[in-house]
Amino acid sequence: MDKKLLGIDLGGTTAKFAILTPEGEVQQKWSIDTNILDAGSHIVPDIVESINHHLELYAMKPEQFIGIGMGTPGSVDSEKGTVIGAYNLNWTTLQPVKELIEKGTGISFYIDNDANVAALGERWKGAGDNEPDVVFMTLGTGVGGGIVMNGQLLHGVAGCAGEIGHVTVDPGGFECTCGKRGCLETVASATGVVRVARQMAEEYAGGSQLKARLDNGEDITSKDVFDLAKEKDDLALMVVDRVTFFLGLACGNLGNTLNPSTIIIGGGVSGAGEFLRSRVESYFKEFTFPQVRESTDIKLAELGNEAGVIGAASLALT
Amino acid sequence: MDKKLLGIDLGGTTAKFAILTPEGEVQQKWSIDTNILDAGSHIVPDIVESINHHLELYAMKPEQFIGIGMGTPGSVDSEKGTVIGAYNLNWTTLQPVKELIEKGTGISFYIDNDANVAALGERWKGAGDNEPDVVFMTLGTGVGGGIVMNGQLLHGVAGCAGEIGHVTVDPGGFECTCGKRGCLETVASATGVVRVARQMAEEYAGGSQLKARLDNGEDITSKDVFDLAKEKDDLALMVVDRVTFFLGLACGNLGNTLNPSTIIIGGGVSGAGEFLRSRVESYFKEFTFPQVRESTDIKLAELGNEAGVIGAASLALT
Repeated sequence: MDKKLLGIDLGGTTAKFAILTPEGEVQQKWSIDTNILDAGSHIVPDIVESINHHLELYAMKPEQFIGIGMGTPGSVDSEKGTVIGAYNLNWTTLQPVKELIEKGTGISFYIDNDANVAALGERWKGAGDNEPDVVFMTLGTGVGGGIVMNGQLLHGVAGCAGEIGHVTVDPGGFECTCGKRGCLETVASATGVVRVARQMAEEYAGGSQLKARLDNGEDITSKDVFDLAKEKDDLALMVVDRVTFFLGLACGNLGNTLNPSTIIIGGGVSGAGEFLRSRVESYFKEFTFPQVRESTDIKLAELGNEAGVIGAASLALT
Repeated sequence: MDKKLLGIDLGGTTAKFAILTPEGEVQQKWSIDTNILDAGSHIVPDIVESINHHLELYAMKPEQFIGIGMGTPGSVDSEKGTVIGAYNLNWTTLQPVKELIEKGTGISFYIDNDANVAALGERWKGAGDNEPDVVFMTLGTGVGGGIVMNGQLLHGVAGCAGEIGHVTVDPGGFECTCGKRGCLETVASATGVVRVARQMAEEYAGGSQLKARLDNGEDITSKDVFDLAKEKDDLALMVVDRVTFFLGLACGNLGNTLNPSTIIIGGGVSGAGEFLRSRVESYFKEFTFPQVRESTDIKLAELGNEAGVIGAASLALT
């Protein structure tokens, strides 16, 4: 019988689990709530218990697993298998995750950050077509990313490689939570899109439903902006144009620097679909030199929520 | 007896050769003129003849070599060992370099483009301290670069990874030979620095020797601009500030994306030394988020002309 992989996608509200074949086919999945009380001290024991419970349920033994891979928020030391500074888990001190999970389950354990494992997932079984050179960016509450080159994740000297959200696209632009200005995240995350809308609304004089709703003090989401743009709202179209300009500039420079086969756009904001993708692509083409323009594609993510568990599981294959 | 490496740095005017230990110590070096006549058809035979001649001179046999590595202009297919489109060599059709050199010398042959092998050289024996993650950029007639991550050169899907000269730093800026606008090369190559000087001189009204020399129609070089800036010429200082702003932005985004231990600046323009480096570093710090700011260094290249032969030789070690 073929051995299996176990993937875990740990988030601030739930931990998702999946059992997969070595080919990446999901065979079982489940999830548990993340209990962040008591400085997140229940999280790892809960994960161990849930794994052991499900192994019993499926009549499986630890020896039947190649390994467990997990994606997590925070700063990860992949070699030591530790995590620190995952604030939505209440993990402020160093967590020896690998040690505890290996001891608790008897299965080898591998770990990386959540954006990196999502990149591995989309590269392996999603829009990346399992090519060796793939860049993934996720446009959610923040903007994250992961870079796979020569078939390997890039980490850099301090683990910050792939932090695409903090690429400077607008020197002197909006201030970012990281302390500098003009980060991609300030204009292309879900809150960034709304920030751009508010700024442009101030200088906008024409007729626009988006303008009217902002002036009324309504809560506007990134999705509202894209929906209104799809209905040809003038201001919303201008906002989408500016946001996709910055995304196209960032993707263009990732292309000029790394020339991956694909740059994959995922996360909540990418729910705007082809409407977003085609506009990013058109600026991407403006900002890339001919050989990159012709060889690097801009695609939407394909795996949605499953990218995390699938990519996490793949950590055990390396 | 230890086996040796043979490195070749092929350029439009000369081909440099070196025999090295596997530790990268140069033991012999020589060079020959590059004869680009007859569609560059003499180049490879001349290289073969020169190698065989020097092996005879040093009483060495092909079996004493681990391999030959070469850096070349043009588009390189490292796996097939072919080159095309190296216009300063007159190589417009596909050149089966590996096949001819292996046949002519009886030694295994490896090839990559000149900026990539210079990156390998500086990473191995120069400012890169042999760390796994190092970015190299060369500011010369054009701006080139090479990226080593996880100890490996990045090539990308069409061999364009590391083309740092075509990163867009100024959307809507100067037109580049590549067809797009605002490439780093248009403002930070030797000709780019002069281009920035000419543009800024047009709007400059104060007293400046640089302005006077440009208005007199004198031929100004990038070195002149930096020399005048070092003498506190007002316009020259403004030009250097703008050029280093763009270099700092490009380096910053390389840092935010890849988080290498070092970004190395080489090439003729880097002859301006610490005066240039410190200014690039200060903009780099403005454009990077804290963890990258603290972990990625900006350094000047250390090997000068030898980076090419040393890095080329290292190709034979992989």
